[in-house]
Amino acid sequence: MEELQDLVAAYRILAAHGVIDAYGHVSLRSPRDPRRYYLARSLAPERVQEEDLIEYDLDSRALDAGNRESVLERFIHGEIYRARPEVRCVVHNHSPSVVPFSVTDVPMRALYHMAAFIGEGLPNFEIRTVRKGTDLLIRDAALGKSLAATLGARPAALMRGHGSVVVGENLPRAVGRSIYLELSARMQMQALLLAGPGGRITYFDEAEVEASVPRQDYVRAWPLWRDKALAQARAERDSEKMKHRRE
Amino acid sequence: MEELQDLVAAYRILAAHGVIDAYGHVSLRSPRDPRRYYLARSLAPERVQEEDLIEYDLDSRALDAGNRESVLERFIHGEIYRARPEVRCVVHNHSPSVVPFSVTDVPMRALYHMAAFIGEGLPNFEIRTVRKGTDLLIRDAALGKSLAATLGARPAALMRGHGSVVVGENLPRAVGRSIYLELSARMQMQALLLAGPGGRITYFDEAEVEASVPRQDYVRAWPLWRDKALAQARAERDSEKMKHRRE
Amino acid sequence: MEELQDLVAAYRILAAHGVIDAYGHVSLRSPRDPRRYYLARSLAPERVQEEDLIEYDLDSRALDAGNRESVLERFIHGEIYRARPEVRCVVHNHSPSVVPFSVTDVPMRALYHMAAFIGEGLPNFEIRTVRKGTDLLIRDAALGKSLAATLGARPAALMRGHGSVVVGENLPRAVGRSIYLELSARMQMQALLLAGPGGRITYFDEAEVEASVPRQDYVRAWPLWRDKALAQARAERDSEKMKHRRE
Amino acid sequence: MEELQDLVAAYRILAAHGVIDAYGHVSLRSPRDPRRYYLARSLAPERVQEEDLIEYDLDSRALDAGNRESVLERFIHGEIYRARPEVRCVVHNHSPSVVPFSVTDVPMRALYHMAAFIGEGLPNFEIRTVRKGTDLLIRDAALGKSLAATLGARPAALMRGHGSVVVGENLPRAVGRSIYLELSARMQMQALLLAGPGGRITYFDEAEVEASVPRQDYVRAWPLWRDKALAQARAERDSEKMKHRRE
Repeated sequence: MEELQDLVAAYRILAAHGVIDAYGHVSLRSPRDPRRYYLARSLAPERVQEEDLIEYDLDSRALDAGNRESVLERFIHGEIYRARPEVRCVVHNHSPSVVPFSVTDVPMRALYHMAAFIGEGLPNFEIRTVRKGTDLLIRDAALGKSLAATLGARPAALMRGHGSVVVGENLPRAVGRSIYLELSARMQMQALLLAGPGGRITYFDEAEVEASVPRQDYVRAWPLWRDKALAQARAERDSEKMKHRRE
Repeated sequence: MEELQDLVAAYRILAAHGVIDAYGHVSLRSPRDPRRYYLARSLAPERVQEEDLIEYDLDSRALDAGNRESVLERFIHGEIYRARPEVRCVVHNHSPSVVPFSVTDVPMRALYHMAAFIGEGLPNFEIRTVRKGTDLLIRDAALGKSLAATLGARPAALMRGHGSVVVGENLPRAVGRSIYLELSARMQMQALLLAGPGGRITYFDEAEVEASVPRQDYVRAWPLWRDKALAQARAERDSEKMKHRRE
Repeated sequence: MEELQDLVAAYRILAAHGVIDAYGHVSLRSPRDPRRYYLARSLAPERVQEEDLIEYDLDSRALDAGNRESVLERFIHGEIYRARPEVRCVVHNHSPSVVPFSVTDVPMRALYHMAAFIGEGLPNFEIRTVRKGTDLLIRDAALGKSLAATLGARPAALMRGHGSVVVGENLPRAVGRSIYLELSARMQMQALLLAGPGGRITYFDEAEVEASVPRQDYVRAWPLWRDKALAQARAERDSEKMKHRRE
Repeated sequence: MEELQDLVAAYRILAAHGVIDAYGHVSLRSPRDPRRYYLARSLAPERVQEEDLIEYDLDSRALDAGNRESVLERFIHGEIYRARPEVRCVVHNHSPSVVPFSVTDVPMRALYHMAAFIGEGLPNFEIRTVRKGTDLLIRDAALGKSLAATLGARPAALMRGHGSVVVGENLPRAVGRSIYLELSARMQMQALLLAGPGGRITYFDEAEVEASVPRQDYVRAWPLWRDKALAQARAERDSEKMKHRRE
């Protein structure tokens, strides 16, 4: 299925951009059934192939796992799909420049047109308000629901001391937003340092946010990203086959 | 045409240096007709080949597009060529260390001899002064003219929350300036942090700027950059041909 | 021996992540005899193969060195294994973002769940308190014992102006901790800059540290890291053989 | 000659570590005649081969240039060799983290044992004190002599708004010092930010500097660096030959 190849590409693109390490994940709402989504088994993202994708229902129960191990934090995906019918793709990452914002009171704000969506507001999920003494992981549906509630109708939410979730009405949008969120975080830190305490920074105003967001699907970048990722996936498969043949 | 190969190289060099992402572009004034310029179709820069270059007039109307899609922001190029007869190359980028300056009141200043041209002054284009509520893109000739007016006779201009334009009397100069502008921005941030509030930084004086700028065409770097970029372009073409033959 | 391949991988993984330069090292307590450990001969980590591993006793005397040169600072390993019976892997690195903490009074603290182990406390070894006028290297058993005493029961210790030691009850844990310690150091610097003097940062609380640490063995990352590292090691060996055959 | 291969390696190592861009250079005092030195022709460092090396006398006159173009700033090398009989290798770079120090009043200080040599003191060459209105380049013997005088007996000197020179009694020492000077500059910036205004940083004391410097020739790193660089040089030569044969 074409869409599952998009999802394979998404894993690899986010890994190649340093947005997800071995522990990030991306999911896609099933194009055939809105009550289902696809998510890779517990595996480093830069290794994901189509056969690693598992189908889940919105309670995050695997439908076809076989002996493939599910990701612990799959409830992030199931609960966001339940709460946000228009969302078709969810990214969970440990975006390195976003985490520092998540542990301070400094809000991320839109200052770069490629990440204008930040202007719609990025809430910060503080897991302690729901449960004390956790390892910060979204290990069950209750925590997933709380995170989805914090996210509300926004394009992304920070997760304190952990990372973020980023969503989109389509896959390239969620992937592109994740990449430019990381970059925008770095730019905002630098702008804050340049401006100094009390210095002025020009953020996007409401009208500019509104003019930018609906259009941005990262369509010029997406084919390049996808081609590179899937070429890599094919090359790995071919070299795997060669190895088996030799053995 | 030799010059079009230079332009192909320019796209790839700027992408390889992290100065342009999928959304930057470079143009070249036609060597045969000063009222024409070349710019790649809407395509990620690191993929550009000679057949992706489209010829435009100074109203940024494509002369030979065929079914190739034009870049939305081509008016940046057309209007600068119109306003600056001596300019033969225009770069538009989202240079990551330059954007933070564009949203603060801290001016970029010349402090590194490879980017001495900054000393001639870098204005900052605030699109709001011309039009409210935009997505910051230079979508038409009127915005292009405003940007060109802000640029004036300078070698580069920042674009608030967006990136910058960099120009040159020849292609290697505009490309080299773009690369060293990014580096100089990073160095200036670091110098400001080191010096601290009220600390002293030694910028280039006027005589030093004057002594440095006319000479700097990045001629030692250019052949290396160009060779690498075009070797990559040829390798992609060859692998494309192989693929077709096999199919 | 399977475990020695893990150790070869560990060297190469840490080098590939920029945690160790040519001067870092990793050791493994012998799976057959707790009074023995393995450490590579004096060699750049990204070149280590199984035949470069030397077995030492806890006095850091080589048992089978032959004409292979031992690492000067092997006492770090021997003395930590002596003092910490549960430790099975010791990493010594020059982790670039950790060194700046080691020369200031700012303590590293847990703020990122992948490096929650920091919450157990990271002491800083100031060699001057034991010996004046050294080159900061752990050149003998006495210095090794002092460092082990500073480390105490903790997962890691900074070494002023030099780097750090990181330990684990198994090899993937010590390797993963080293990688995420570097990342967490960077995040903490950025959070401190964002928050500004007197600004609030949300660190992990004690219960969160306790919930996170025992579980974290970096098991999703480890197979990816190991496969890549050993594939590289095999490729180097093959190309070495080819070269010999041709000669 | 073995030593000229070391020099070829040095160019490529420094480029690979990001210490020199297309405009840096390294020289070696002739092993046969202390009044001669070798320096590559005007060429991007990562392309240098043995046939690109030109022999100069201490007045920086080429002895065997043929039609190869000399580097403008060769006087840096000639005048330092004249002033410092014990020096056998000189590096001139635009080390990106060192330049910010050169434009402020913040002195670089030793805080990392791999760059303990900084503790011997790094003067800053302000070209304006010798000549006004230059492009900062060391274009003649008079400027070279001034720079050598600023350097004095030290291991390195910053050059305001331009870069630095680093010297060594042997080639690996000068190359290693250049690499770790860049890293130490980054660490010092970070330490200064962490400590904040008036915060305490523990620098190396005099005895520690004295204990560290004489020994440090980067001997564990050098063979790795050299092998990689020369393997690359050979690969380029082979591919060049193949191309000629096909033509």
